[in-house]
Amino acid sequence: MPQRDDAAIDAAALRDLLDGRWAEVRRRAREVLRGPEFAPQHGLGMAEHRARVTDQLRLLARTDLARYGFSPEYGGGGDVGASVVAFEMLVCDLSLMVKLGVQWGLFGGAIQALGTERHHAAYLPGVMSLETPGCFAMTETGHGSDVQALRTTATFDPDADEFVVHTPDEAARKDYIGNAARDGRLAVVFAQLVTGGQRHGVHALLVPLRDADGTPVPGVRIEDCGPKAGLNGVDNGRIWFDHVRVPRTALLNRYGDVAADGTYSSPIDSPNRRFFTMLGTLVRGRISVAGGAGTAAKAALAIAVRYGEVRRQFSRPDRPEEVVLLDYLAHQRRLLPALARTYALHFAQEELVARLHDGLAGEPLDERGQRELEAHAAGLKAVATWHASETIQTCREACGGAGYLAENRLPQLRADTDVFTTFEGDNTVLLQLVGKSLLTNYRQEFGSLDPLGTAKFVAGQFLGTVAERTAARSLRDRLARVAPGREGDSVLRDQGWQRALLEDRENHVLEGLARRLRAGSASGADPFTVFNDVQDHVLLAARAHVDRLVFEAFAAAVGRVRDAGTRAVLERLCDLATLSLVERERAWFLEHGRLTPARAKAVTAAVNSLCRELRPHARALVDGFGLRDEWLAAPIALGAEEARQAGRARAGEPVGARS
Amino acid sequence: MPQRDDAAIDAAALRDLLDGRWAEVRRRAREVLRGPEFAPQHGLGMAEHRARVTDQLRLLARTDLARYGFSPEYGGGGDVGASVVAFEMLVCDLSLMVKLGVQWGLFGGAIQALGTERHHAAYLPGVMSLETPGCFAMTETGHGSDVQALRTTATFDPDADEFVVHTPDEAARKDYIGNAARDGRLAVVFAQLVTGGQRHGVHALLVPLRDADGTPVPGVRIEDCGPKAGLNGVDNGRIWFDHVRVPRTALLNRYGDVAADGTYSSPIDSPNRRFFTMLGTLVRGRISVAGGAGTAAKAALAIAVRYGEVRRQFSRPDRPEEVVLLDYLAHQRRLLPALARTYALHFAQEELVARLHDGLAGEPLDERGQRELEAHAAGLKAVATWHASETIQTCREACGGAGYLAENRLPQLRADTDVFTTFEGDNTVLLQLVGKSLLTNYRQEFGSLDPLGTAKFVAGQFLGTVAERTAARSLRDRLARVAPGREGDSVLRDQGWQRALLEDRENHVLEGLARRLRAGSASGADPFTVFNDVQDHVLLAARAHVDRLVFEAFAAAVGRVRDAGTRAVLERLCDLATLSLVERERAWFLEHGRLTPARAKAVTAAVNSLCRELRPHARALVDGFGLRDEWLAAPIALGAEEARQAGRARAGEPVGARS
Repeated sequence: MPQRDDAAIDAAALRDLLDGRWAEVRRRAREVLRGPEFAPQHGLGMAEHRARVTDQLRLLARTDLARYGFSPEYGGGGDVGASVVAFEMLVCDLSLMVKLGVQWGLFGGAIQALGTERHHAAYLPGVMSLETPGCFAMTETGHGSDVQALRTTATFDPDADEFVVHTPDEAARKDYIGNAARDGRLAVVFAQLVTGGQRHGVHALLVPLRDADGTPVPGVRIEDCGPKAGLNGVDNGRIWFDHVRVPRTALLNRYGDVAADGTYSSPIDSPNRRFFTMLGTLVRGRISVAGGAGTAAKAALAIAVRYGEVRRQFSRPDRPEEVVLLDYLAHQRRLLPALARTYALHFAQEELVARLHDGLAGEPLDERGQRELEAHAAGLKAVATWHASETIQTCREACGGAGYLAENRLPQLRADTDVFTTFEGDNTVLLQLVGKSLLTNYRQEFGSLDPLGTAKFVAGQFLGTVAERTAARSLRDRLARVAPGREGDSVLRDQGWQRALLEDRENHVLEGLARRLRAGSASGADPFTVFNDVQDHVLLAARAHVDRLVFEAFAAAVGRVRDAGTRAVLERLCDLATLSLVERERAWFLEHGRLTPARAKAVTAAVNSLCRELRPHARALVDGFGLRDEWLAAPIALGAEEARQAGRARAGEPVGARS
Repeated sequence: MPQRDDAAIDAAALRDLLDGRWAEVRRRAREVLRGPEFAPQHGLGMAEHRARVTDQLRLLARTDLARYGFSPEYGGGGDVGASVVAFEMLVCDLSLMVKLGVQWGLFGGAIQALGTERHHAAYLPGVMSLETPGCFAMTETGHGSDVQALRTTATFDPDADEFVVHTPDEAARKDYIGNAARDGRLAVVFAQLVTGGQRHGVHALLVPLRDADGTPVPGVRIEDCGPKAGLNGVDNGRIWFDHVRVPRTALLNRYGDVAADGTYSSPIDSPNRRFFTMLGTLVRGRISVAGGAGTAAKAALAIAVRYGEVRRQFSRPDRPEEVVLLDYLAHQRRLLPALARTYALHFAQEELVARLHDGLAGEPLDERGQRELEAHAAGLKAVATWHASETIQTCREACGGAGYLAENRLPQLRADTDVFTTFEGDNTVLLQLVGKSLLTNYRQEFGSLDPLGTAKFVAGQFLGTVAERTAARSLRDRLARVAPGREGDSVLRDQGWQRALLEDRENHVLEGLARRLRAGSASGADPFTVFNDVQDHVLLAARAHVDRLVFEAFAAAVGRVRDAGTRAVLERLCDLATLSLVERERAWFLEHGRLTPARAKAVTAAVNSLCRELRPHARALVDGFGLRDEWLAAPIALGAEEARQAGRARAGEPVGARS
């Protein structure tokens, strides 16, 4: 590919693009999160780390960051999008990010979303000010992914006008609960609501955990989860309830209420639909995690790219100085496609946040809109958190032994984000949810998400929609038949071709899945087996869907760039994001006749070319993320390597010269 | 695929197979590494952890584990294979594994391999008894991969009959040196030897670090590397030398010596060849790391499989109890191919250890034999350590939140092994070394491994060998032309077909690489650019080579099994290892016409079938590793989950029933 001379990043234009709709929140976070109080520290003991994070949280409680997500009536900012963006900026310590998410996102957010006016008035001010540190007590030891099967009970006692909250056995203890081991005073507890001997499914109640002295209240037992792989500044704990009594009004009663006589009522008749409606209001947590994962990946890339730009190893025959790591193709291939995908996910994340924000600000979403939002959130959370784990790992390895030292931050970023792939929804379970949502997209009612419901449905109603989708087929056939060769290489960078390729894959995988489910059901096999046999196909359908969404978001963002030089760079970056994905997934395209072998090899060659073209812009691209140097903190990213080389130059040897 | 009823593991037969040639060493390690002194602990502070590991090492110094690798003349066991196997058994704490490796492998091993009788007699007894804790001071801050370019100097002063060891600048400080921050008294220091104003390349010398009180000796400055991602029981440090004087006899003089008058002499004329000969004697370190990585992967799989066998989540419509995780196809797909590959790597490792051991015990290897051993070690180290990182990560995620808790060991295993991918040779650099070794396989002399040398050589001499290899082509053409379909599915499990497929890929990738290098050289491009442009191809050639070696080792091991039931299971496991590899790499096979699209899809289907067939044997397969329960330590692998479910059953509900 010829070098286009106009490719040159304008830092301000790039920053504007990346800061996006909530630029003001990002600027505010850059202003607030500075100084020694917020500087990353390594090597803290668990107790010390927890204390520091709590102190930091107190400092943030005095700022608007604490209030963005809450109703203006109670002093909140009324800006959900801002609350998600503020969360993702807290890369100076991911323990702080998660602790803030527990207090103001999960705990406060559940009161806001599931409670009614009386809860808002009574609790939200204390939630925001941190007078009332709280927990989101959903997960139990026995049930993490299958929340509908939680076993804690909240049994109504009409004589006392109270609920009795109880942990029936060890599997029902609340587990991994953030803010529980040390700080939490109050908890939103998810429990099976029982009244008049009848079960009404999972509901949330406010249950006190500790008194003003910090002593657990009678009937509450709390245990520390102890050290974890990371996030040791967050005090995760286990909670047992021994017939703990709370007033009837402790029930967060927006979607289900109990009258004084014990009568249950709900605006939603179907218990299943009610449950998923309640869960749906909590989708912000997943979206926030996807954003936080993205920032961690950005920080790791900023460190590795800066180091890769100055670190030298091995000499080349024709020059006195040693070769800079980022000049090696293998190094480019490790870092630059990951950088491109990080950009793509950034814009997909912004779209998702906007969708959440606008959905809450405007007319309530209809069922399908809500389901699509939830699937979008689930899919992006899974993809973004796996991407973060892989990218940070790659960055660690790209920095060699230096990347293994705590002082260079990569170990902490890696360990802290590791749990992102399994908390707020296990990624595999989430992708399955996306796959099922795609399958049930035309279904009119909320249904159980168990294998039986889906398989039955697919066998019955779904096939009509498949026919609609096959309209795209003629385009696809045309694409596949384009002869490979020189003209085929330029088509690789054509956005229309890329889009058609990814859309077609999405549709074809889904069609094939529906076909297999139908054939399985027709064979008379039991529904579990039918669905389980195609589980890998379900996950692929979900990935193909998310891949297309992410592509669209990046392409749309590039279309918004006015500065020609910046745009030229981002067009290549978008090409790299897409073609490195196509390269990774090229087996599928080959198997299904969408790429010829020659074209597939051309994709690999194009990825190499794009790496070379983008290499000069790598530093500007990571600088565009707008992460403060003090957040990166790693000496290898902040001049230590240059200083060593300069010392050697002063000693009379050319920089990087081999002895 | 039909279920073969004869597949059933005989535990003793499997253990014998896996324990292999050094079964006695494994049994000994199981005997020694027990009790509270060696039980894994989590949450230790760095100082406490270091102290504990040093205490453990002292206990081991009293056992034969310390002596296996040393000459019998000085009280050693004279069994290098045993020393590598003993190292890999130390999974109870990988800090202990690495600390032992530093003391008796790297430090003691360098004295043994690079020193002469005077060093052996004077130092080996103290090395073995731990009276003399020591360091292997090779890596510098500025040079890790490119060891030939180290900058520490050892300048001979004939007047004093001493060497002056010196750190000329910050980039030349020794870095990441195990045993340096706390315990080391003596170091093998790699430095540029200078005598009479002439440089003779990197040599090793014994330099004291601390006196009997543990105080650094004059001229030596030591700094702690501080906390790391893992291995915090190992005291890594940085060392500066300020004109430190050591006697002339401190030079480990097997491959290069300096007479009293300053005259340099060596049994190897070429400085380049001398350097690589010295390095080659240290190959055991890499082999040991590959083995240690393997054991860590085994431990993680043992934990995740045991948990996956009892942990339940989500109900199926037709049964009262919830579904066990390992019954989900997606869960099988995560764990079982990784388990199969772990087996394959185990046998490849045993072959490599035997090759090293027999090479040292018998006639010295010729140059080609030595180069192949080194390439074998480099390739297996890269592949095995990446496999361990990925596998432990997968196991962590497969255990959800429980996998993130320190008490369940997976975080520590993951963090400790993380550096294995970049120490003892960065994996990318090692694979490049393998690729170059393949290219230079017929070359008669040691040559510089820099890009120029290789590219020139390839353009000149290499092409002859390519012609020889094409003899395999007719077989390949035949394979590719086999019609897909029913008979094609059974061919997938044919070992001959699998072997031909992997051999052909290995040869074809190498041929293509040679062709591209030749074309690049012919084009007049500079050698660095020529080589850099195909760097991804070099890495692929290396991987294809290692993949074939690993396959051969597993297939050969299965062939040694007499018990029919065990053999039937291991045949499937070997099929799964191979076919999941082919599945992952199927894009290449499709691009090169080695698999038709239908056959490629059949490979995916076969992987799913094999997962289902092997699922009942998963527990027996991990038990076969022979890792003591107290090494696994994780409550989730040792009955905690069963206990919770039993508690629930006692409470009157069927185990795993959904509320």
